[in-house]
Amino acid sequence: MAASAAALTFARRISRSGVLFPCSRPQVWGQAARQPPSILPTQRRAFSNNKILVELDASSGIATMKFKSPPVNSLSLDFLTEFCISLEKLENERACRGLIITSAVPRIFSAGLDITEMCGKSTEHYAEFWRAVQEMWLRMYGSSMATVAAINGSSPAGGCLIALTCDYRIMAENPKYRIGLNETQLGIVAPFWFKDTLVNTVGHRVAERSLQLGLLHSVTEAHQIGLVDEVVPEEKLQEKAAAVVTQWLALPDHARQLSKSMMRKAVLDHLLARREEDIQNFVKFTSKDSIQKSLSVYMEMLKKKKS
Amino acid sequence: MAASAAALTFARRISRSGVLFPCSRPQVWGQAARQPPSILPTQRRAFSNNKILVELDASSGIATMKFKSPPVNSLSLDFLTEFCISLEKLENERACRGLIITSAVPRIFSAGLDITEMCGKSTEHYAEFWRAVQEMWLRMYGSSMATVAAINGSSPAGGCLIALTCDYRIMAENPKYRIGLNETQLGIVAPFWFKDTLVNTVGHRVAERSLQLGLLHSVTEAHQIGLVDEVVPEEKLQEKAAAVVTQWLALPDHARQLSKSMMRKAVLDHLLARREEDIQNFVKFTSKDSIQKSLSVYMEMLKKKKS
Amino acid sequence: MAASAAALTFARRISRSGVLFPCSRPQVWGQAARQPPSILPTQRRAFSNNKILVELDASSGIATMKFKSPPVNSLSLDFLTEFCISLEKLENERACRGLIITSAVPRIFSAGLDITEMCGKSTEHYAEFWRAVQEMWLRMYGSSMATVAAINGSSPAGGCLIALTCDYRIMAENPKYRIGLNETQLGIVAPFWFKDTLVNTVGHRVAERSLQLGLLHSVTEAHQIGLVDEVVPEEKLQEKAAAVVTQWLALPDHARQLSKSMMRKAVLDHLLARREEDIQNFVKFTSKDSIQKSLSVYMEMLKKKKS
Repeated sequence: MAASAAALTFARRISRSGVLFPCSRPQVWGQAARQPPSILPTQRRAFSNNKILVELDASSGIATMKFKSPPVNSLSLDFLTEFCISLEKLENERACRGLIITSAVPRIFSAGLDITEMCGKSTEHYAEFWRAVQEMWLRMYGSSMATVAAINGSSPAGGCLIALTCDYRIMAENPKYRIGLNETQLGIVAPFWFKDTLVNTVGHRVAERSLQLGLLHSVTEAHQIGLVDEVVPEEKLQEKAAAVVTQWLALPDHARQLSKSMMRKAVLDHLLARREEDIQNFVKFTSKDSIQKSLSVYMEMLKKKKS
Repeated sequence: MAASAAALTFARRISRSGVLFPCSRPQVWGQAARQPPSILPTQRRAFSNNKILVELDASSGIATMKFKSPPVNSLSLDFLTEFCISLEKLENERACRGLIITSAVPRIFSAGLDITEMCGKSTEHYAEFWRAVQEMWLRMYGSSMATVAAINGSSPAGGCLIALTCDYRIMAENPKYRIGLNETQLGIVAPFWFKDTLVNTVGHRVAERSLQLGLLHSVTEAHQIGLVDEVVPEEKLQEKAAAVVTQWLALPDHARQLSKSMMRKAVLDHLLARREEDIQNFVKFTSKDSIQKSLSVYMEMLKKKKS
Repeated sequence: MAASAAALTFARRISRSGVLFPCSRPQVWGQAARQPPSILPTQRRAFSNNKILVELDASSGIATMKFKSPPVNSLSLDFLTEFCISLEKLENERACRGLIITSAVPRIFSAGLDITEMCGKSTEHYAEFWRAVQEMWLRMYGSSMATVAAINGSSPAGGCLIALTCDYRIMAENPKYRIGLNETQLGIVAPFWFKDTLVNTVGHRVAERSLQLGLLHSVTEAHQIGLVDEVVPEEKLQEKAAAVVTQWLALPDHARQLSKSMMRKAVLDHLLARREEDIQNFVKFTSKDSIQKSLSVYMEMLKKKKS
């Protein structure tokens, strides 16, 4: 019952935001994007809500989602809801076959889950938040689009997870950027489906060490262990991402999608079968005094850092 | 019922070709092979049907199967039937403990499944064909012999699969050769047991990208990702293959075979449990108008290329 | 019944040796270790039985177990019993959070299972012995401590297994040292949980080849394939091991332990679910005339080597 109610809440939330369900056509495209001279006005459309700018180049079939939620693109409930809505629109848009995910905020791709959503709120809120995190992962890891992460900044925890859901990861060469599932460092534990996604990408042994130590890898190291597929100078990143999606879109969609599904189905089914249980676990864990306390300490630290 | 009938058909086919069932001794060895001066006439025997030349050096216990089905050693129903018969003979031959698989056709190891078997034929034919492909894989991946692929030419799709079933892969150094499961490029999808075999060899991440893009890897790249174990100049290939089998045969057979079985059993059992279902899927997929059409187009393209 | 009886025997054995059960406090610490001047006498305690020297530095929370059972630290029933007792003591000691495993015998880490325990004994003895091997693995692979193997000598078979159970492996740079699961070379087969541990560490393909050939890898090769994580000059080994444990202990214990458990649970559960069956298999296999014979031959060979 609780589970269904939570599911309803999330559905309503998406509904309120104007999400269009599968098989319907997006209605909210509108605001025209600035367009390069070489592309006809009718071929490039954009829609933007508060936190993510989405541009679709209809001639190439490639959409770009730019996270623009300063200071650090943290994954709040609002952000995640907007993310899922945008994904649903794009999946339903015939003209859209590929997706590039990148950041409009300098030096940060995404800092991961918004800790304020996990601190001092009701259990219902924790459940709704966690369902949204799951939803984002399910949609991205199971996306029928060819997806490329153009990682133009640091990408810890949930930010790293988003990158891991893509078909290909390109990271900007920058000695200051870091990427990894560093939950352990905060005294929390990456959920099993974060772990499954990491194991599928870097293998069991690297994942085991990286998760236990909560490692944030440099760009070079991330490349060496296969956490990112390619490293390029920052000014070449978007161009390279477009070239890679184009390469993936050269394949027949149906065959590419079935191959992707064959590789990811086991891990997707793993969460689908245990989704409500996973939400309960998260709520129970987050509600613990000890966890609330250490999250508060962490938030204070972040605040002091800023000021 | 359909399944049993198809199984019977395949069994009859093997039977007509003179296959010997387990525990019986091969009777059809015959035609003497040309023998190098250093080996006594009684120690080297060969048998050849139309498409594969099999030589057994009884002194070393190493058999060599040479694909000789020009122009491209494609895996037709006849080829596969002969392949399975030869394998069964060798498995039942006590003197035979190791196997080298290579090609007698220049520049090609095997081009993979014969598309003419999948085009414009009856559903019964598709089922019989697919059962033969499964049979080949089950016998090779589960072989009690130490098996080495001496890959002396390009090896796409089903050709790559044969190489993947071996215990060790050595490829000739040649900038023109390619190897990979490139099914996606043809608009079709590698079956789950092709995928399982690839994942066991190169790991999940490399397999995911390679399958989705239908990559045909250069020899250097295949070596880097672990798709082949070793690269040698073409003139050293057979010698190296013999040295490797000899190394594997230095181990006690029983312990080596049990170790191999322990590693491969899960994936073998996976197909055995779903064999009929997998045949039905193949037949259904292949019978689709859209697939028939794209295979026809592909065949026309191949014909034009030749002329 | 047989299984319970064997379990009881092993429990009694541990009991006779003075093992302390979970939640109780160790009572047999005693004999003071030689202490470096910089550490206060009360901060470093040691206990030693016959075969393993255990030192606990309470200030750092790091224990060191030194195998001192010449000539080759072979894993006899006595050794394993003492090992499990020491582990249980340390797990129950609040002050202890990290563990370094190393050897006090020059040039050898551990030669693996003591073959005399598998030769010419009763089936009850084989069962008790095997239960002790399982117990060691279950405790080490599932340890809540951060564990580091400081591999200062060769480490074949069961010796390699001990190293594989740790969270991190550092090996001394020495061209003569070897490490690997070489069971096949002795005509026996590594059990499935040895295999699972190896696959989790080096991946499926490397494990498949290494197990079939019973490879003993050089230090360089072991590093290349990921069987060890780091190679250092022998004189730096202990210092490096301490630095690594310290790094692991910088993480919150609870989060680190849950992450470790998440990674290893499937493989641990695999043995727990089949433990008695696995013992029966071992007893049946070991009791075979052919195996007894080949083990005798091997033991004779070892004796001749010594003299």
